[in-house]
Amino acid sequence: MPIKPHKLGIIGVGRVGDAVLTDAMMSGLFGEICVIDVNEKMAAGQALDQHHATALPNVANVAVYAGDYDDLSDADVIIMTAGPSINASNGPATSAARRELAATNGKIIRSTMAQITSHNHEAAIIICSNPLDALVHIASTEFDHPQGLILGTGTILDSARMCRVIADHLGVDPDYVRGYMIGEHGPSGFPMFSGVNVGGVGFDGLAELFDADPMDRDELTRRINDAGTAVFNLKGWTSAGIGQSAITIARSILLNEHAVYPVCTTLHGQYGHHGDVSLGVPCVIGAKGVERILEVPLDAWEQKHLAATIAAIQETVEAAS
Amino acid sequence: MPIKPHKLGIIGVGRVGDAVLTDAMMSGLFGEICVIDVNEKMAAGQALDQHHATALPNVANVAVYAGDYDDLSDADVIIMTAGPSINASNGPATSAARRELAATNGKIIRSTMAQITSHNHEAAIIICSNPLDALVHIASTEFDHPQGLILGTGTILDSARMCRVIADHLGVDPDYVRGYMIGEHGPSGFPMFSGVNVGGVGFDGLAELFDADPMDRDELTRRINDAGTAVFNLKGWTSAGIGQSAITIARSILLNEHAVYPVCTTLHGQYGHHGDVSLGVPCVIGAKGVERILEVPLDAWEQKHLAATIAAIQETVEAAS
Amino acid sequence: MPIKPHKLGIIGVGRVGDAVLTDAMMSGLFGEICVIDVNEKMAAGQALDQHHATALPNVANVAVYAGDYDDLSDADVIIMTAGPSINASNGPATSAARRELAATNGKIIRSTMAQITSHNHEAAIIICSNPLDALVHIASTEFDHPQGLILGTGTILDSARMCRVIADHLGVDPDYVRGYMIGEHGPSGFPMFSGVNVGGVGFDGLAELFDADPMDRDELTRRINDAGTAVFNLKGWTSAGIGQSAITIARSILLNEHAVYPVCTTLHGQYGHHGDVSLGVPCVIGAKGVERILEVPLDAWEQKHLAATIAAIQETVEAAS
Amino acid sequence: MPIKPHKLGIIGVGRVGDAVLTDAMMSGLFGEICVIDVNEKMAAGQALDQHHATALPNVANVAVYAGDYDDLSDADVIIMTAGPSINASNGPATSAARRELAATNGKIIRSTMAQITSHNHEAAIIICSNPLDALVHIASTEFDHPQGLILGTGTILDSARMCRVIADHLGVDPDYVRGYMIGEHGPSGFPMFSGVNVGGVGFDGLAELFDADPMDRDELTRRINDAGTAVFNLKGWTSAGIGQSAITIARSILLNEHAVYPVCTTLHGQYGHHGDVSLGVPCVIGAKGVERILEVPLDAWEQKHLAATIAAIQETVEAAS
Repeated sequence: MPIKPHKLGIIGVGRVGDAVLTDAMMSGLFGEICVIDVNEKMAAGQALDQHHATALPNVANVAVYAGDYDDLSDADVIIMTAGPSINASNGPATSAARRELAATNGKIIRSTMAQITSHNHEAAIIICSNPLDALVHIASTEFDHPQGLILGTGTILDSARMCRVIADHLGVDPDYVRGYMIGEHGPSGFPMFSGVNVGGVGFDGLAELFDADPMDRDELTRRINDAGTAVFNLKGWTSAGIGQSAITIARSILLNEHAVYPVCTTLHGQYGHHGDVSLGVPCVIGAKGVERILEVPLDAWEQKHLAATIAAIQETVEAAS
Repeated sequence: MPIKPHKLGIIGVGRVGDAVLTDAMMSGLFGEICVIDVNEKMAAGQALDQHHATALPNVANVAVYAGDYDDLSDADVIIMTAGPSINASNGPATSAARRELAATNGKIIRSTMAQITSHNHEAAIIICSNPLDALVHIASTEFDHPQGLILGTGTILDSARMCRVIADHLGVDPDYVRGYMIGEHGPSGFPMFSGVNVGGVGFDGLAELFDADPMDRDELTRRINDAGTAVFNLKGWTSAGIGQSAITIARSILLNEHAVYPVCTTLHGQYGHHGDVSLGVPCVIGAKGVERILEVPLDAWEQKHLAATIAAIQETVEAAS
Repeated sequence: MPIKPHKLGIIGVGRVGDAVLTDAMMSGLFGEICVIDVNEKMAAGQALDQHHATALPNVANVAVYAGDYDDLSDADVIIMTAGPSINASNGPATSAARRELAATNGKIIRSTMAQITSHNHEAAIIICSNPLDALVHIASTEFDHPQGLILGTGTILDSARMCRVIADHLGVDPDYVRGYMIGEHGPSGFPMFSGVNVGGVGFDGLAELFDADPMDRDELTRRINDAGTAVFNLKGWTSAGIGQSAITIARSILLNEHAVYPVCTTLHGQYGHHGDVSLGVPCVIGAKGVERILEVPLDAWEQKHLAATIAAIQETVEAAS
Repeated sequence: MPIKPHKLGIIGVGRVGDAVLTDAMMSGLFGEICVIDVNEKMAAGQALDQHHATALPNVANVAVYAGDYDDLSDADVIIMTAGPSINASNGPATSAARRELAATNGKIIRSTMAQITSHNHEAAIIICSNPLDALVHIASTEFDHPQGLILGTGTILDSARMCRVIADHLGVDPDYVRGYMIGEHGPSGFPMFSGVNVGGVGFDGLAELFDADPMDRDELTRRINDAGTAVFNLKGWTSAGIGQSAITIARSILLNEHAVYPVCTTLHGQYGHHGDVSLGVPCVIGAKGVERILEVPLDAWEQKHLAATIAAIQETVEAAS
């Protein structure tokens, strides 16, 4: 097999796709990046802007260009960011908005997946568009592509916010707070408090360990769920971290790391579900994409939330049909 | 002297400031970043968004927050991106627009510098706002701050585009094309063809060395000057690379690298000018900021362009007074 | 306060010091590195070799040179690797060897600390020499230097081996196995199984979560303790990772990360000990060095091992007196 | 084509191979590394030591193991470091030593290449063993493997020393000194002064540009040639930088960078030579290995030295036959 520099395709170069592109250029993972957008001028502009930047010190000479689906036939990783986004959050008004978004983006993911799978059956497809879990579910169940290679950024960012909130309370680097949000990338996703660990100590022992005020689960859940909204209300959108999330997954795949992140994937036997829901749950990620879904044990509070988030996701999938 | 994590201040977190902030977060250079914007909600939102992202894998736990000028009293580096930007380019219409921009941003740089210098006399101040050379000149000549520590991103990006255009012609990584644009960060800046070097060979020998078509200086100059405009016409703004440019300068200062880049600085004796113009020219950059301005010899074509770019910059300074 | 590139001193540039130097050069943390060795030719040679390498692509222009203790007066971090090392491990013969090493290196740490503290009272001092815990104890209790700024690499490497052994059993990236060895950097250190966490699941649930064979604590402990010996028996020494361990600590300090690692530090109230023992235990590390010792709760098996490792360390300190 | 993490084979894990292995582990380029050594215990020990280190923070989970030539069948890059090394330099005594080394290592390269090419016809083979140019020549002319994919580290390190010596004279970061040593990786290699460039200025203008003392070509050549010897005399061997040199080449290949380095390659038409000599000369490096040999123009002094270094290399090849 001749030497093949790894190749990335990015579909959609709006705000999220731009963040992904920027982080991909700096990642050292790719020799070639093809960007695709229905707005062809935007795709050409983003690629050209990055092409110029390759001449700066500390920026690698990645071959970056605007292309079309033909160019994805030998891509190793495809990151999907296309479709309008919604940034506001909870509440009844938003529910309607999310259903409408689901209908719109459901069509977009279907046409995109049709295009991709007519050219490439072996790339990892990482979905960032919203409503994330519904789109991953459609891509994973309606198209012929290896199961593990269709996955979404899931609750990686949500989990980061969870760790950040706990870390702020304790005065510690969040990289050393282990914790996962499970379920929807959206308001029904929930923190798995029973799995939190800092310095080898579980959630209930942390306040004492750090001489900190006790932490209330409901209060923390509220603060975690409000974190994204707070950013949205202040600056009008959220963008930091989504590029890193997608590229982190790509790295784990291209280096076959067997890393553990809460990506969005379709359940096959876990929690009694067989192909009827896709959601964010800790998984082992390697060269085959999702290598193993970790069916982490949940306590009663968490099980209740799991049922609720699954219902919410299934409702969104419905809205996208 | 107690251990002091390096601290960055960013003034202005619009599109350019956002790019600087994102690159600064990933640079590994700073333990603390304070962002300031007249739009306080935007500053708070940008900081909070980045604060959440620190909890992602591969992102360091930088202390990032929105603050004010008081917070800059112990900053090591301050990057100035505030003020409206202009993205269109050459032509008579643009000249008027640039003069107007000069007047507006001239006021902003004066009030910003007054604020900074009332709190801090030792930080490196890196200016990214436009018209770049005029603003550096105002900051450098009207305020009491060590000369070498006031500098602009100069023609770093312009030089990158120059190297990229030549690299595309030869089919080579632009990191291995040495070449400098000199003068204004704008239409009157010019390529120093006499200093181009690829693989140890000067400009006139490159076509033969690479079996490529001959390169025409005027044609190349046009393509280099059009590069930014092309991006602007396609996507509406240019953004890639400006963050890397500013952070590259910051790194050279914080690590005392003695690196050579074409930053914008005020001439003191070079080319017969004594404090009456600031422009992009190759400089040695270390812990004291601009350690040495390299008065590179210019051929006749380049000298003619130097005079023209100096006149253009001085006219802009005038417009900003 | 003028801009100050961070400065590192390395004492001892044998195999361990060489690894530290190499990793420090590539870390992007330091503008200046001074190496000191009783073998002055070796110090000069190591510095000159690295000085040449700074001219390679991707290597920063760090000022690296051989010096003496005067040069450490403005160092931010000092990494101590001097003194003969012992690489064999358990068994009665070895105990005698370790006591003899303690006596020799006890003298070396005392003279080194006397030199350092006559020049510098604010640097972080990171000790890598063996017997590690005894040397940290001597440095920390017999010299006038801020407590938190004297620390050892502790059980960072031991914990890495623990995570690696568990990760191998489960087929997962060890970065996602949280786990700590506690106590001596040596045969009496023990795994804190009660704090192990993978994907949010504790030690007892891991075999089921990963469809793996059950893991036996004693068997695992044996494999962890044998890991270093296995390398020693195969290649004659161990070296990989010690540089990264020391530099990881330095990074947490210079960026004020509040990271959590099991460094070696002197207990002040934890586990009922008041300044009478130093050992590896999870700590929060920031700009002040050890900011907080995490007194993690231990189960009965772990408490028994804690008592034993403390006794072993105290015996070694005795041997070094 | 399924996703394939890039795979590295390292042949020989003595001092040089160890440096290559360490840098490869940290490079982010490889998902899998196989090490081979005639000393099988050493290979196993080096792999196991690095395997443990993968569990440290900031170290990726590379699959590293000791193997044999079968394991190289799907390697993308193979780095050859096997064979005894010689560290002393010029002088008649050394000439004899180098001839003897050539004979010994000539046998080793032949048996190694026979093994490699019976398993793999598409990997890039990067040779570090000495006498470098003779071994590259044997590998390139006696075995059936794509020409561009057999290359040596050439004069990358020699060029680095050249840039370092000039940089020290001028007080500037050597990354901004462009300069190439050409010819033998050994005493007959020579600096191409006519191609030196700092800040856009050639060799003859540098002293004035930097207000430095004039530089004498012969004196500089002597200092460059003495640089390696000085390290050898101080510490007994040289090691810094060789790992970075080999990994820098690997990166350019795996990312298809079209970078320009002076690797060792066999001439095919350049300087009037057709397959009769291999030497260090600036080349464009991409996914096909050596994509283009740059026949840089030489002045009279340089041409004289070129003839001499070619004669020296051919003599060594003779000694290896």
